[in-house]
Amino acid sequence: MKRKYKVVIAYDGTAYSGWQYQENAVGIQQVVEEALAYLEGGHVRVYGSSRTDAGVHANGFVAHFHLTKPIPPKNLVRAMNSRLPEAIRILRAAYAKEDFDARLSAKGKEYRYQLYQADIEPPTMVPYWTFCHRPLNLDAMRDGAARFVGRHDFVSFAANPNRELETTVRNIFSFEVKKAGPRYTFIVRGDGFLYKQVRSMVGFLISIGKGNEKPEAVTELLEAATPRTARVETAPARGLFLWKVYYRM
Amino acid sequence: MKRKYKVVIAYDGTAYSGWQYQENAVGIQQVVEEALAYLEGGHVRVYGSSRTDAGVHANGFVAHFHLTKPIPPKNLVRAMNSRLPEAIRILRAAYAKEDFDARLSAKGKEYRYQLYQADIEPPTMVPYWTFCHRPLNLDAMRDGAARFVGRHDFVSFAANPNRELETTVRNIFSFEVKKAGPRYTFIVRGDGFLYKQVRSMVGFLISIGKGNEKPEAVTELLEAATPRTARVETAPARGLFLWKVYYRM
Repeated sequence: MKRKYKVVIAYDGTAYSGWQYQENAVGIQQVVEEALAYLEGGHVRVYGSSRTDAGVHANGFVAHFHLTKPIPPKNLVRAMNSRLPEAIRILRAAYAKEDFDARLSAKGKEYRYQLYQADIEPPTMVPYWTFCHRPLNLDAMRDGAARFVGRHDFVSFAANPNRELETTVRNIFSFEVKKAGPRYTFIVRGDGFLYKQVRSMVGFLISIGKGNEKPEAVTELLEAATPRTARVETAPARGLFLWKVYYRM
Repeated sequence: MKRKYKVVIAYDGTAYSGWQYQENAVGIQQVVEEALAYLEGGHVRVYGSSRTDAGVHANGFVAHFHLTKPIPPKNLVRAMNSRLPEAIRILRAAYAKEDFDARLSAKGKEYRYQLYQADIEPPTMVPYWTFCHRPLNLDAMRDGAARFVGRHDFVSFAANPNRELETTVRNIFSFEVKKAGPRYTFIVRGDGFLYKQVRSMVGFLISIGKGNEKPEAVTELLEAATPRTARVETAPARGLFLWKVYYRM
């Protein structure tokens, strides 16, 4: 009998092509499937809650899969971690109901983006922080972030918007910008995000922080709802973390 | 005319053999010398404040060297950083007096050691934190740390103590253990440290924290002053940072 499992995964995305396999680079999914294949004695297909880009990290990615081998969730955590590289850790595992789907059952997601403002980049922050040499206007970035909140067409803040998508309308529940000395953390929660939407929104907020754009431009671009132009920059992957996937709100 | 410079360097030691070159691995020194050779148009010998082991990081390593090219310190920072990999950053540069020596003029050093106590290691902490699965007794570790403070023969807490050394007596000014949730930071300041002394002292404090050793054992081992045995473990390199070098106390 096959049983369905749900796992929460944290990973350092630096060396991977993202969750999904891409040419010339290993995907996290592939590495997790290989660990499970060893335990199951055969291929196990793992379904993730999202795609994540190359170099993006995860604090609480969620995936589901079936196993025929009856492994209690607690043992599964230990067994998978002993097969996985240090850069990928199973944090929790649980049996899932048959109707649970890591992607389709998700009600919302939280992403966090880490930015460090300094003249010189501390080397031991390089893997997980994006740097900005110019001083940033926090109030302006907070004003811009607040304008993203609500139900909008985010086509102006997404890369190559997928033609298959029924809609590019998404609902942002909250968008905070926290500051602790030179460390800025952007925390955004929403019902779902388009391809490169978080990095486009953060990239634009950084332009606002530097004074290259005004907070009002967020509203203008959302209202225009035309495909993204070079005006909206994609913030680098290394500062981004998929923080949490919500299945109940 | 040659001018003497002093630079403060931060580095991520993960990919290096330490400050010094070792077989099959690149040393930080070598990389810094190559960046300077480009600016000087000839080999520049760089003298560091300390050896650091493979995998150890630095927040404020100090080095000195001479240049014939007249480069103002501010420009030197920019020029060196543009030639160096992201993992090595020149934080500051200044002209130094001829009698300044990065190693011999040092009055003291501060090292910090980062330890994370959890069942499962967060992947994005792997490069800079050592992990401990077992709960730790903070009071016992603090008691042990306090016993290291003062002038002692540290031969029991150093690896392969160098026969060339005149003495294995060192003076520890302070040794704190800070805790913030699962994060423990060991902060030790002293006039100098023997080979692997910091990692041996921290390794022993972790044994105390786990309950495998009593704080009183620190005093016993210091008083015995016999070469280190397997009882004293070397804590892994990745949690260690050379934090600061003092030239005035």
